[in-house]
Amino acid sequence: MSQKDNYSIMVHGGAGALDNVKDEKTAVRYIESIRQILEHGREVMKLGGSALQAVEACASLLEDDPVFNAGCGSVLNEQGKVEMDAGIMDGRDLSAGAIASVSNIANPVQLARLVMTESEHVMLISEGAKRFAEHCGMDLTQDEYFLTPDRVEQLKEAKRSHKMILDHDETDTGGEDQKYGTIGAIARDPSGNLASATSTGGIVNKRMGRVGDSPIVGSGVYADNETCAVSATGYGEDFMRTVISKTISDFIFMKGMNAEEATHAGIEYLSRKVKGRGGVIVIDNEGNCSSGFTTKKMIHGWIEKGGETKVRFK
Amino acid sequence: MSQKDNYSIMVHGGAGALDNVKDEKTAVRYIESIRQILEHGREVMKLGGSALQAVEACASLLEDDPVFNAGCGSVLNEQGKVEMDAGIMDGRDLSAGAIASVSNIANPVQLARLVMTESEHVMLISEGAKRFAEHCGMDLTQDEYFLTPDRVEQLKEAKRSHKMILDHDETDTGGEDQKYGTIGAIARDPSGNLASATSTGGIVNKRMGRVGDSPIVGSGVYADNETCAVSATGYGEDFMRTVISKTISDFIFMKGMNAEEATHAGIEYLSRKVKGRGGVIVIDNEGNCSSGFTTKKMIHGWIEKGGETKVRFK
Repeated sequence: MSQKDNYSIMVHGGAGALDNVKDEKTAVRYIESIRQILEHGREVMKLGGSALQAVEACASLLEDDPVFNAGCGSVLNEQGKVEMDAGIMDGRDLSAGAIASVSNIANPVQLARLVMTESEHVMLISEGAKRFAEHCGMDLTQDEYFLTPDRVEQLKEAKRSHKMILDHDETDTGGEDQKYGTIGAIARDPSGNLASATSTGGIVNKRMGRVGDSPIVGSGVYADNETCAVSATGYGEDFMRTVISKTISDFIFMKGMNAEEATHAGIEYLSRKVKGRGGVIVIDNEGNCSSGFTTKKMIHGWIEKGGETKVRFK
Repeated sequence: MSQKDNYSIMVHGGAGALDNVKDEKTAVRYIESIRQILEHGREVMKLGGSALQAVEACASLLEDDPVFNAGCGSVLNEQGKVEMDAGIMDGRDLSAGAIASVSNIANPVQLARLVMTESEHVMLISEGAKRFAEHCGMDLTQDEYFLTPDRVEQLKEAKRSHKMILDHDETDTGGEDQKYGTIGAIARDPSGNLASATSTGGIVNKRMGRVGDSPIVGSGVYADNETCAVSATGYGEDFMRTVISKTISDFIFMKGMNAEEATHAGIEYLSRKVKGRGGVIVIDNEGNCSSGFTTKKMIHGWIEKGGETKVRFK
């Protein structure tokens, strides 16, 4: 392997919530989407793109695919509205950008990137984030783009059953058309730079203004060239309380673990401390890829050190 | 010392931004406020209150004193409005509550506590947080309560000089009436339970919707009975990028450090990684109190293991 082929990329499309996808056709649909998006990430790397460019590109494509709960496929809150959260982080200098509770933005991860590079802040929310998007010249997208018939029906079902549909198996309503979860992308480029991006529509029927872990630096998203890149998916509150991505990074920084050991230790920590529900993808500073989850399944895929594209839906 | 007197409490009223308070009268005003609030915390402990009750009570009193940048003394954003952030965490089970960008709430820390105990979420923001407050029967406070003449003048000055007034010395406008900073309280009760609370009005002339570290679990606020309680104050973005409170907790968890060692390591980490500006207060699981800051001063005080009340304004 030449040095320029030494890149690693991982993406995920949610944990647990997809446990009920049982027919092969639907499963193939997910697997093919993940595979194509990874191949796109490979092209970015082959063209000399940075880890940051790769994760922004891959996360944007995941946001554009309505089967995933982010961007155009975002679930609806208690008011039937879309409120999206996203975060992105550059491991070179720990610069980070995050947005929460935004609507009418087709690619929240791109707005998070603008917060990182074009503002003096890390996190902007709600109307303030939308104003910033307009200030940056970003197009606002019509509500109709997000209000797919599937999502409207899903919210009705959640309201009928008086519950939020959480991003894990136990509270799943069981329909095979329940497509939700977080999306995320992490990468290490041949120069050794790490980056992470996470984006979500949150939880079906969630309380207005609820923010999960996805845009929280250290919880749903983290990247530090010295340690690793992490993206998490699952029941966000569990990840926020354990600050899981930073915990995994610290296992590498303070205990000298590699990606696999730190992922294992992180999942054990998540389970022991809060019985956490969900999963993580991790690439360490040597390009090793690892994943772990407490749910039955997590749809994810990876290219490790320029190797084959692999997708796992379990 | 009897077991029931083995409590520790620390509070802070901001770092760096108070560097320009040079006249003794003003300094005494700060010191006396911190001292009285610590004595109140001592009473909570003597009456058998929990660490959580102590930090909520102390943080509320800090919010009620207009000299501090939180609650009624909150600074104004670019639109001349108050947008407050607060977070609280219970080290017993890592339960946490946070609110961001809320207005018309006299004691944001109390709303954060309600998010923790009365909702299924960790973080609620903006209108959603305000609605939740009303849902919980919390009184809304008039704008006038927050719009003190000092704050209006301070914003005008910031706009004249075309800058945000950050929470540290280099960008301070130099006036002795510039009262801003974050407030925070941490405690360990005689049963060994730890808790932390942090609250702020943010940065003068900040962009609408900007969220700093105060409500971010792992950045501005963290508590875990297994390790320590931490509250941070300073330039929030630096603390978010380094997830400083969780980092300090991990120094104890993964490296076996005590409060003093972990604080020292945390401040070194903050400086090395992002040249971070601000400070932290830390109580470890044995009740040892420690503080560290990269600014010239941090106003803070403590009662260590039931001992004397000490206040430091440097």
